[in-house]
Amino acid sequence: MPILVMKFGGTSVATLDRIRRAAKRVGMEVANGYDVIVIVSAMSGETNKLVGYVSETSPLYDAREYDAVVSSGENVTAGLMALTLQEMGVPARSWQGWQVPINTTSAHSAARFIDIPRDNIDAKFAEGFKVAVVAGFQGVSAEGRITTLGRGGSDTTAVAFAAAFGAERCDIYTDVDGVYTTDPRISSKARKLDKIAFEEMLELASLGAKVLQTRSVELAMRYNVKLRVLSSFEEPSEGAGTLVCAEELIMESKAVSGIAFSRDEAKMTVVTIEDRPGIAAAIFGPLAEAGVNVDMIVQNVSEQGYQGHKEGVTDMTFSCPIDQLKRAEKALLDARDAGTIKFDRLEADTDVCKVSVVGIGMRSHAGVASKMFETLSNEGINIKVIATSEIKISVLIDRKYMELAVQALHDAFELEKA
Amino acid sequence: MPILVMKFGGTSVATLDRIRRAAKRVGMEVANGYDVIVIVSAMSGETNKLVGYVSETSPLYDAREYDAVVSSGENVTAGLMALTLQEMGVPARSWQGWQVPINTTSAHSAARFIDIPRDNIDAKFAEGFKVAVVAGFQGVSAEGRITTLGRGGSDTTAVAFAAAFGAERCDIYTDVDGVYTTDPRISSKARKLDKIAFEEMLELASLGAKVLQTRSVELAMRYNVKLRVLSSFEEPSEGAGTLVCAEELIMESKAVSGIAFSRDEAKMTVVTIEDRPGIAAAIFGPLAEAGVNVDMIVQNVSEQGYQGHKEGVTDMTFSCPIDQLKRAEKALLDARDAGTIKFDRLEADTDVCKVSVVGIGMRSHAGVASKMFETLSNEGINIKVIATSEIKISVLIDRKYMELAVQALHDAFELEKA
Repeated sequence: MPILVMKFGGTSVATLDRIRRAAKRVGMEVANGYDVIVIVSAMSGETNKLVGYVSETSPLYDAREYDAVVSSGENVTAGLMALTLQEMGVPARSWQGWQVPINTTSAHSAARFIDIPRDNIDAKFAEGFKVAVVAGFQGVSAEGRITTLGRGGSDTTAVAFAAAFGAERCDIYTDVDGVYTTDPRISSKARKLDKIAFEEMLELASLGAKVLQTRSVELAMRYNVKLRVLSSFEEPSEGAGTLVCAEELIMESKAVSGIAFSRDEAKMTVVTIEDRPGIAAAIFGPLAEAGVNVDMIVQNVSEQGYQGHKEGVTDMTFSCPIDQLKRAEKALLDARDAGTIKFDRLEADTDVCKVSVVGIGMRSHAGVASKMFETLSNEGINIKVIATSEIKISVLIDRKYMELAVQALHDAFELEKA
Repeated sequence: MPILVMKFGGTSVATLDRIRRAAKRVGMEVANGYDVIVIVSAMSGETNKLVGYVSETSPLYDAREYDAVVSSGENVTAGLMALTLQEMGVPARSWQGWQVPINTTSAHSAARFIDIPRDNIDAKFAEGFKVAVVAGFQGVSAEGRITTLGRGGSDTTAVAFAAAFGAERCDIYTDVDGVYTTDPRISSKARKLDKIAFEEMLELASLGAKVLQTRSVELAMRYNVKLRVLSSFEEPSEGAGTLVCAEELIMESKAVSGIAFSRDEAKMTVVTIEDRPGIAAAIFGPLAEAGVNVDMIVQNVSEQGYQGHKEGVTDMTFSCPIDQLKRAEKALLDARDAGTIKFDRLEADTDVCKVSVVGIGMRSHAGVASKMFETLSNEGINIKVIATSEIKISVLIDRKYMELAVQALHDAFELEKA
């Protein structure tokens, strides 16, 4: 039998009624001839309740016990889903991480998959069971301790099972009906994409689209697992949702697939540093150690007289999440006190946002950057920092222009058209 | 290190504050030099919530999935208790049934212990851990499926661990401060017992004292585990609670230790049956098959003229739980229809109760029965059925006299005196 993986998130299993609704979807796929592996999250709110218990009990908790406690929400849903399927006449069995076993590293609360042996679940399929309901987000370490994968880990569990079992597809049921060209709350012209390449999804997800956990997309890309994101609240239909797949499966792509944005950015400039080899390492080493996630980096040209600088000195500008700005500041001041770097002062700007255009098509379409800059210029929006990758161009701009920029770019690249 | 088992019921771990309170008790015993095995129930209300989910999902549920779902409450408490102890500086680790492993039969929802290997927990004690927090009520079958022991099973888990680890004592923390000579709500003179023999506890527990699960007392008796029942809501003190132990450890015992009672009794008389060998089997066989728990049985003398009977016929009277009376009636009428027994009619009496005096001392003290009957007679209470065992005398009386009978017997046997 071909195997299908179906994953239901917390809102899709929030009540017994919703579990029943999800089970009906599973039953339909069984009727379509699949052996189905269902990955479930905890009923929404449950994991937060358990995390709350742990935090209140022990602020600096032992991650082993944290994992043992918070993984229990998924176990409950797995059992209830199996019971619901049985009630509908579909032979189903629940599986906790240790029963499969889902072997992971011992990095509690941030465990990585080692392997998922198929034997036990395959044996049940051979017995006539049609569905294996697996508790998401969890695994077991070599020490026999329960591990968890970190928040959102159930998406990753789903992709890992799809890879391990050679599934035809991995369907992620959630509370949105797919991936959009941009956030519909920002632009009413946002359009649902039928297909998107892994690489694009990675750029969109990490930029805040928040539909799929980044790690699950990375894993899907590595094992070439076809991922489909769709809503568990809409009636099933042909071509529902968005297929996240290898580039080759997307016949013709536009230059730009989507516009992503992030409000929580801050910009910091280190003013008047020496322009010498190793200076970047001297600055970003301490920031990395302090756990600051530096995103965009720009080193200004070093030229005598430029911005009043003497020759041999320059400025370095970077962006980071706004809540890490204080930490960044402290790390750099400490480094200066320790004598490892010299600079005049730090200039922080917390009123910025990041807007990015993303698309695998831009590799073969020239002029995307110039069109982006022109569009922003026409709207009178000043660009503060620019960063580019092969399939993405990002700019930092004043936060007040964010909606305007997203709408103008969405129009300029005609994303409302299929 | 000597080992102590401490078990905390649902009300004793109902909130994080109560878990902290319980953990303090555990810490005190660690300070006293014990390695401690803590058995925890689910936070009160949790198991009922999970059972509710299962029943609503699937009225005729698969017991394997039922067990997988309802066992999760104990896992949460075990992790939280371990975290609380760690927070207090006590090295602790949580254990789910499969991790120990607690090997049980595959009789889901009513599993029995097969064995509890010490190796894994002993290895942790050797590493310097002082406390093993074990999720009560659950185990794992040879098939690698989670099993549960049935409601109240955590007491039994505690005793099983005490037996497996040769614990010095098994302390059961609950919401009452011990075992009383009778229910204090019935007699204000009820006195807490310092010690009680296993046999007495079994008679009292099955008669409705409801302090300890019967199975846990049976297991404690078989493995000679010293059980102590005490309140988790009172300050610890020397001699707190009630010690349930072997008869030999009770130096001098009074004839009667306690007065038990049960309101939920019904009496049924099978009128005019043949008085022949095998007639009892012909009556009680169908009742057993119908799942009726027959308690007391009295066969009237067969004598010509007695109660108007002809020679060779008699009446048979038995008692059973009141909610099984309809079933008993149907089973007997069906048997008559099938021709396996003959009788004139059935007479049911649902206005009865059972009162018992219990005491291992009555084996060596004569006159307990006559004193009991005399006391009831002095109060004008008519005895309907009498049944005796080595350490118990039970009578069925009109339900309206129950409180009066309990109080009169408590006085007559001077149970208020230590």
